[in-house]
Amino acid sequence: MRKAIATVCLSGTLPDKLDAAAAAGFDGVEIFENDLIASPWSPERLRDRCADLGLSVELYQPFRDFETVDPEALRRNLRRAEHKFDLMERLGAETLLVCSSVSEDAVADADLAADQLRALADRAERRGLRIAYEALAWGRHVDTWQRSWEIVRRADHPALGLCLDSFHVLSRSRQQTDVSAIADLPGDKLFFLQLADAPRLRMDVLQWSRHHRLFPGQGAFDLPGFTGNVLAAGYRGPLSLEVFNDVFRQSAPRRAAVDAIRSLVALEEAVAPRLPAPVTERIELAAPVAAPRPTGFAFVEVAVAGDAVTPVARALAAMGFAHVGQHRSKPVQLWQQADARVLLNSGGSAATAVSALGVQTSDPTESAKRAHAFLAPAVPRERGPNEAELPAVAAPDGTQVFFCRSGAGEADWLGDFILSGTPPAVATRLTQVDHVALAQPFDYFDEATLFYRAVLGLDPRHDSEFAAPFGLVRNRAVTDPRGLVRIALHGTVLRRGDWSPGVPDPQHVAFATDDVFAAARAMRERGVPLLSVSDNYYDDLDARLDLDPALLARLRECQVLYDADERGEFLHFHTEVLGSRVFFEVVQRVGEYAGYGVANAPVRMAAHRQARRQRQAH
Amino acid sequence: MRKAIATVCLSGTLPDKLDAAAAAGFDGVEIFENDLIASPWSPERLRDRCADLGLSVELYQPFRDFETVDPEALRRNLRRAEHKFDLMERLGAETLLVCSSVSEDAVADADLAADQLRALADRAERRGLRIAYEALAWGRHVDTWQRSWEIVRRADHPALGLCLDSFHVLSRSRQQTDVSAIADLPGDKLFFLQLADAPRLRMDVLQWSRHHRLFPGQGAFDLPGFTGNVLAAGYRGPLSLEVFNDVFRQSAPRRAAVDAIRSLVALEEAVAPRLPAPVTERIELAAPVAAPRPTGFAFVEVAVAGDAVTPVARALAAMGFAHVGQHRSKPVQLWQQADARVLLNSGGSAATAVSALGVQTSDPTESAKRAHAFLAPAVPRERGPNEAELPAVAAPDGTQVFFCRSGAGEADWLGDFILSGTPPAVATRLTQVDHVALAQPFDYFDEATLFYRAVLGLDPRHDSEFAAPFGLVRNRAVTDPRGLVRIALHGTVLRRGDWSPGVPDPQHVAFATDDVFAAARAMRERGVPLLSVSDNYYDDLDARLDLDPALLARLRECQVLYDADERGEFLHFHTEVLGSRVFFEVVQRVGEYAGYGVANAPVRMAAHRQARRQRQAH
Repeated sequence: MRKAIATVCLSGTLPDKLDAAAAAGFDGVEIFENDLIASPWSPERLRDRCADLGLSVELYQPFRDFETVDPEALRRNLRRAEHKFDLMERLGAETLLVCSSVSEDAVADADLAADQLRALADRAERRGLRIAYEALAWGRHVDTWQRSWEIVRRADHPALGLCLDSFHVLSRSRQQTDVSAIADLPGDKLFFLQLADAPRLRMDVLQWSRHHRLFPGQGAFDLPGFTGNVLAAGYRGPLSLEVFNDVFRQSAPRRAAVDAIRSLVALEEAVAPRLPAPVTERIELAAPVAAPRPTGFAFVEVAVAGDAVTPVARALAAMGFAHVGQHRSKPVQLWQQADARVLLNSGGSAATAVSALGVQTSDPTESAKRAHAFLAPAVPRERGPNEAELPAVAAPDGTQVFFCRSGAGEADWLGDFILSGTPPAVATRLTQVDHVALAQPFDYFDEATLFYRAVLGLDPRHDSEFAAPFGLVRNRAVTDPRGLVRIALHGTVLRRGDWSPGVPDPQHVAFATDDVFAAARAMRERGVPLLSVSDNYYDDLDARLDLDPALLARLRECQVLYDADERGEFLHFHTEVLGSRVFFEVVQRVGEYAGYGVANAPVRMAAHRQARRQRQAH
Repeated sequence: MRKAIATVCLSGTLPDKLDAAAAAGFDGVEIFENDLIASPWSPERLRDRCADLGLSVELYQPFRDFETVDPEALRRNLRRAEHKFDLMERLGAETLLVCSSVSEDAVADADLAADQLRALADRAERRGLRIAYEALAWGRHVDTWQRSWEIVRRADHPALGLCLDSFHVLSRSRQQTDVSAIADLPGDKLFFLQLADAPRLRMDVLQWSRHHRLFPGQGAFDLPGFTGNVLAAGYRGPLSLEVFNDVFRQSAPRRAAVDAIRSLVALEEAVAPRLPAPVTERIELAAPVAAPRPTGFAFVEVAVAGDAVTPVARALAAMGFAHVGQHRSKPVQLWQQADARVLLNSGGSAATAVSALGVQTSDPTESAKRAHAFLAPAVPRERGPNEAELPAVAAPDGTQVFFCRSGAGEADWLGDFILSGTPPAVATRLTQVDHVALAQPFDYFDEATLFYRAVLGLDPRHDSEFAAPFGLVRNRAVTDPRGLVRIALHGTVLRRGDWSPGVPDPQHVAFATDDVFAAARAMRERGVPLLSVSDNYYDDLDARLDLDPALLARLRECQVLYDADERGEFLHFHTEVLGSRVFFEVVQRVGEYAGYGVANAPVRMAAHRQARRQRQAH
């Protein structure tokens, strides 16, 4: 299917937006009126530029407050429309989006609306143009697709059809039947389809729409279901994004355009199985490789520049990891305890950071093909003779994702290491990587969600927000259904300014244990730089939860944090920050607890600051 | 009156917050529970630190979901309370804030609530503590102050009283009588007063409260009216701020604390005249100097570092300004046309910027005293012999505000200049400074509003937001009632990131004219680098407004922008950016138009980018 994007989705002046849309691979654009008005380029120049870039001008939008007016206002509105028709001819746009009126003067009269829109469509038809009428969710009288359809049906004009916008439809639809009835509309009256996702928010629908829309797959709406109904009705125009979002409005447009088209590829994939065969035979949907789901972390790589290798290596050793191998051609150490594997890579120049995740799948080559279908940038790698071909892509925050074959084998990545024969000791009861937590740059949070969802097939869960000592923090995990690969994304709700005394963009690797107290005691004895927890925290736990005094005493003694939900318990502790932003966590999940102990994060963050201050004081 | 602040208002760990509150001059704090829990400091250490800083611990907060529970839950809740009472004794806090329950298990039973709160108050009283009960606006059953009062009245216990929070009261009050009835409450049952302002938003009240509260005077609520009623009732506790705000949560706490206490000084000043004499005799309200209102701009100073003096001076000359004087001891040129005066100061090292505003008042000394009462930082200045003493303070964005005597005189600032005798030519029809537009750093927008409101007595008006090419922009003007001093504040809605191709923190000076077309033609002839306007803009004006064709032709020919409201018209044009961020505007107001042509700002911004690109291409 053709893919288009409204210029209002992207930041910049019109040339920036067109270049970004073309570079990402879009087939067409909706030209947003305000972008054109502000542009110093004439419509003809814009038309030529679009043609050069291989972009069609799918829509000119929006035209407001047209219908159900008095005759004098109708005359003025038709005059206004003729001016816009002139412009569309110069621009090469065939379809004009007309939004349902929000004017206080508009009257509730479907026949009058149909008459006046018919008059408009007549004029459009004479020029070979057409009108797509859209119900705004906050329209004065026409605020549902059903009402807009009733008017289009009554007008019964070949140059007048509907524009369906997923936000306007889904923000107002409380019942599934509201949406499924779209499948019964005549396809030739569906002139245009605008797509936007959104989080569920309890606020004024206009503000919700203007500030919080997202690309499909980033929010809470059922876009595949909605789109499936529109396609089932027979719509064959482009899938076109119209997303008003405060963050995307000021993000780098080329990057946002890639995020945008990725959302449409993922949407097509999600829609395909929902469509009846007669429909899928008539339209061609993108079909990215259905790669196997990831089955676990093969490894987590930490980049340790120069002398920073020492504190991280020392911490891992004290945590009971053994240095079991050395890469054949690169300055990379393999550390292991049970099934938890950490690579220390001292080959780069950047500060200490989680640089790569090794994700196990049963077919790395297919996984990489899928990633490329979703525009994940491939990471070029140098490979020594006889070394494994490990395909890798870069996540939005720059973390590299390697696809590793599940289980051992000749071609497996472990073969690239010279193993020392040191056993992967289990001294401190760690069993595997539980999750990796990665701070997302402010602008990339929703992009990262979609990336992991599309590329790795992980599901977003556990959306939350908490008040950290230095500002609000947003959290979201992406996990596979069995919890074998858990990535905890977090980021500030607002971009930080000058006052930023917290750990900048913290990252951590959490290891699972089957006995958090044994692990904590062993690690303390072995000299791991563990984080001290405020006594006030345990006093509050006692007040709040009335825990078994013996458990409380052990938590306090071992400096272990505690969380519980209706499904189970979570016990965990942390190291100090090693280098500028990386630390380790040890977690024990009891029962079916599936969260990340987010309630304790402010305590951990204040403790990290205290530890840093004490280090600085020495 | 004593002034307090809840630690939740400020960013940082608890020591950061206490230091900031003390430095700003607060008398006390409310300790927010989560701040204490995360703090590695013991309650005793915190108590000592507060004592050292001269801060009393006015409140410990919040205690949640206490009342109307079953007997077993009551037992658990009383146990929890006893733990918190222990803590309060260690901390030196006498009052505990209990919020009305939000639990789904809470029942609508005022007698049961009264009974259970009485049991809690009994326990508190035994320790010399007391309970302040507060109705949350989203409480399960108790969601208005009237309902919380009914329960406190029924409980009739000396250790149980009300906490009134302006947000909870005013967000729910649609009628004035809801608030004025507070004056009839018995003063000795008003245990605590929490103050917060907020903008009027149409959203879920909990989200509104948690993210968008402001310091008094920064929002839309009638805080003076509310506070006046509370004081009239006989409340004699502290004025205490409790402001949850996403921006303040991550702002530098020392700066936010100054903003906070400034809001309370302004509030006291605003409350005083509303109170009946018997009340004001019993309490002591802050009384900053009632300085005279500003009567106009004496001058606008532009800092021009080194060689940048040339383009700005050249532009002023071409705009018809004459270089009429030179400062006696400083590298400052005076340029003038009619009553518009611009100082070019090449004494600094910073890039070209609006560095100072000269504001005329009838008594500069009194104006400066008032500014100091509002904690405006004084700007130290070197003064040559016989030069005028010009008191100056720094606005939040660093712009210096000089207080200048209205009219001429011996001590006037003009006497510091050696006048060349060149007449202040009127070649291009400029008459005076219309307004100065200053970009506010992201965190300081609301602080700036309060600063100008308190220090200069200007009123905030024309709040708006528009979609600029590179993201959303927020606007607000602060003006005196007669429009003699207009300052247009603007800033990004979100802090910008790496993609920032617009003019960084743009500033401009707008000069008034009585004939914008004559001014535009004259300036074009004289070679002023005027900004070209997109032809698309005029096509759209024509389509939208059906203007007189002759007017439209003149606008297009002279490249003048147009706006209109129900009160009048606004015609204006701009220069290119001179240096990195400063440009000039020429405006003509027709009729009573009082705005700033914000609708045209995106066109201007896109044009500035185009001009910059063309310059770079040469």
